[in-house]
Amino acid sequence: MIEKKLTDKRLERLVDQIARTYRGDSGINFIDAANLPVRGQILEVLDLLFEVLFPGHTGTKAVSQSNVKYVVGDLLSQIYAGLVDQVKRAYQYQCRIRKCADCNCEKMSRKVTLELLGELPRIRELLKGDVCAAYDGDPAARSYEEIVISYPCIIAIGVHRIAHELHVRQVPLIPRIMSECAHAKTGIDIHPGAVIGKNFFIDHGTGVVIGETTIIGDNVKIYQGTTLGAMSFRRDQRGRIIKGGKRHPTIEDDVTIYAEATILGDVTIGKGAIIGGNTWIKESVPPGVTVSSPNPDLIYRKHKKVTAGRP
Amino acid sequence: MIEKKLTDKRLERLVDQIARTYRGDSGINFIDAANLPVRGQILEVLDLLFEVLFPGHTGTKAVSQSNVKYVVGDLLSQIYAGLVDQVKRAYQYQCRIRKCADCNCEKMSRKVTLELLGELPRIRELLKGDVCAAYDGDPAARSYEEIVISYPCIIAIGVHRIAHELHVRQVPLIPRIMSECAHAKTGIDIHPGAVIGKNFFIDHGTGVVIGETTIIGDNVKIYQGTTLGAMSFRRDQRGRIIKGGKRHPTIEDDVTIYAEATILGDVTIGKGAIIGGNTWIKESVPPGVTVSSPNPDLIYRKHKKVTAGRP
Amino acid sequence: MIEKKLTDKRLERLVDQIARTYRGDSGINFIDAANLPVRGQILEVLDLLFEVLFPGHTGTKAVSQSNVKYVVGDLLSQIYAGLVDQVKRAYQYQCRIRKCADCNCEKMSRKVTLELLGELPRIRELLKGDVCAAYDGDPAARSYEEIVISYPCIIAIGVHRIAHELHVRQVPLIPRIMSECAHAKTGIDIHPGAVIGKNFFIDHGTGVVIGETTIIGDNVKIYQGTTLGAMSFRRDQRGRIIKGGKRHPTIEDDVTIYAEATILGDVTIGKGAIIGGNTWIKESVPPGVTVSSPNPDLIYRKHKKVTAGRP
Repeated sequence: MIEKKLTDKRLERLVDQIARTYRGDSGINFIDAANLPVRGQILEVLDLLFEVLFPGHTGTKAVSQSNVKYVVGDLLSQIYAGLVDQVKRAYQYQCRIRKCADCNCEKMSRKVTLELLGELPRIRELLKGDVCAAYDGDPAARSYEEIVISYPCIIAIGVHRIAHELHVRQVPLIPRIMSECAHAKTGIDIHPGAVIGKNFFIDHGTGVVIGETTIIGDNVKIYQGTTLGAMSFRRDQRGRIIKGGKRHPTIEDDVTIYAEATILGDVTIGKGAIIGGNTWIKESVPPGVTVSSPNPDLIYRKHKKVTAGRP
Repeated sequence: MIEKKLTDKRLERLVDQIARTYRGDSGINFIDAANLPVRGQILEVLDLLFEVLFPGHTGTKAVSQSNVKYVVGDLLSQIYAGLVDQVKRAYQYQCRIRKCADCNCEKMSRKVTLELLGELPRIRELLKGDVCAAYDGDPAARSYEEIVISYPCIIAIGVHRIAHELHVRQVPLIPRIMSECAHAKTGIDIHPGAVIGKNFFIDHGTGVVIGETTIIGDNVKIYQGTTLGAMSFRRDQRGRIIKGGKRHPTIEDDVTIYAEATILGDVTIGKGAIIGGNTWIKESVPPGVTVSSPNPDLIYRKHKKVTAGRP
Repeated sequence: MIEKKLTDKRLERLVDQIARTYRGDSGINFIDAANLPVRGQILEVLDLLFEVLFPGHTGTKAVSQSNVKYVVGDLLSQIYAGLVDQVKRAYQYQCRIRKCADCNCEKMSRKVTLELLGELPRIRELLKGDVCAAYDGDPAARSYEEIVISYPCIIAIGVHRIAHELHVRQVPLIPRIMSECAHAKTGIDIHPGAVIGKNFFIDHGTGVVIGETTIIGDNVKIYQGTTLGAMSFRRDQRGRIIKGGKRHPTIEDDVTIYAEATILGDVTIGKGAIIGGNTWIKESVPPGVTVSSPNPDLIYRKHKKVTAGRP
């Protein structure tokens, strides 16, 4: 006879087997370490923040000059409550790791959240520049609205500008969770540590990687598949990778980087340089220079029976 | 003492700071421009359209010959209501931009939505060919059902075939929102303007970019990371990019393009041509020709102490 | 006068047109083939499985030593019920295709689901190694928790290790649906057939493709955009691709593969080898060797008027 449901005994055995693996200091056990930040709630906070940054753009709220303060006030209250809770969870996690007492986690969370909210007008100004850069840089762009509503770069850059503010204030966990939410939605992987100037445009975007210590100036445009990465890692005497340290490129103002270019290491791409598609750059490039690969050799081979089977 | 919640005064100040940035003609203000299309509702319409295109494939509805007309009738009614609403929002937005009166937005929305519904039988026929092309082209494909339920190319191509019908009817905003929904789900970025023939297969798909003025014939197969892009943009006297104009490749019938190939500009890849992986093509390719990169030089360097530490 | 809703007559005509296309043996008709696996419910089962594999990591459940058995017992019961249902749907679909009677689908579903649950302790052990590999391999990684909560490779590898168990037990449809869920979230496309050893790390990940018959040893690290793919397909006398057959690479222990490398065909990358970025490999590589492309030629062209317009 087939068992119709998991019998008590079998369930108990399975539970025992699994619970046994939860003991010990295994590095992936979160037992007794509850109340980590919740990815789903961070996503919700990001959605609310985007509603403040681009009021009305989701089409779900009718925002007018007469009701705008109520709408924004309501949004900010929700963001504040939600983000304080998540940031506090992140700080408390850090306290548990460092085995210190609760280091004013609640107070610090309120402080840092207020600071982020205070940065929103500046972030809006930056995003305005990013939207204009997309409009100016993409012949297929029909309107600012199209860009704000549908372009993945706006999600990626918008989330980055928020996450970066928390990163510089050394909030644990949350910035990276935010940036990986944007990565999942867009295929654009920007580490929250990257410093990015005004009027930044990423076209298409899938496969773009921008590493932790990258510095990007103003008016920079990059295309899909571009990597701004590290070349090699410093290791300690025991062969372990050393964390931190500037290891990603610096991209000066007015640089354009075409599709699938890979720029590795702590090199500088000088002001106004143009990096051709599919190039592999491991050295600095002076300002005002175009770098490209030579036209690649291509081998043409005529098929023996081209359309033989197709009259 | 720590404030327990956002005080009225502090909230008011933050709201003021942000609301101030909403004034003026900043390009990212949607104040008083309510009722834009709603991305979430467009996603719902797409889900319903897929239920009509592949009845029963989601496993959530038991469709049989006896109930099929009721199921389809119900789905079409929902799609009609939902899409008319979204298309109307898009037309009304356009009227606001062009500062014209409401140009029969409601009537046009009904007309265009009906036309799309009328195209569904033809789109189904096309998608049938696309599913067959995936089955024939992928040794790992086990069944048509596996392809319909799980392959990302079916989402990308299915959404494209819908979005393209709205694009050619010049519906603003909606086609691009649809295609970016598919891009987000699949990593495949097909501009709704691209013209795509029968039996189209994209394997794996992540990183594929197909630009606005691309034309693709029948029986074309492309692999992950392929770009069909523009090479350079025409600019007006003030240096601004000129919108529109054919600037992407034409791919004729029976062409195969292997992984990571990049084809740029208004070039023609002739009937039956095979484009090797990782090639960079900026000129037209005659029919019946295989183009490949020469076997690249590779440098082999033996490690000094290969497995020294590992007995 | 404009019609305010879809009239009965017009709706009927549309329904007729579409329903007509549902008849016949078209390959994309699921009429009378109800009860396919439901992607949404498979996603839910995966979420529950991740809650077992990393208890507490979502932050939504407070798991402690005192309640852990209740939490895990509850989760396993839900997983068991949900997965038996989905696997049964997949087996029943297979019976319909093969036109055999119901081949003990229910019994087989219970058996295979129990076997998967029995593998969970081992899968947890493997994932522990994968998290450690990510921590050791990425200078930007701050903690195990950051990796578990936010790194896309954990989703991709975790889902793979589950889907692979169902694949080797020849469950139809479900493994591929699972792997495409992970692909959609991460841009990492691992076929459930791939065999993957211990301590596997994928950095960034977008664009990675790992084919069906790939074999990967222990301590392997790969970067974004890497393809482990097939080079050409065997065809039968009628020119149709032959399904199955080893056609993807074997990667031995301790190999590192840098970004955008492409390794094609049934070749072997020997133990400890290092494959440089952007290489294109179609032959086996001996153990203990670094393979790289020569530093590519780059053409530098100075702009005529570099920053002329920018005082």
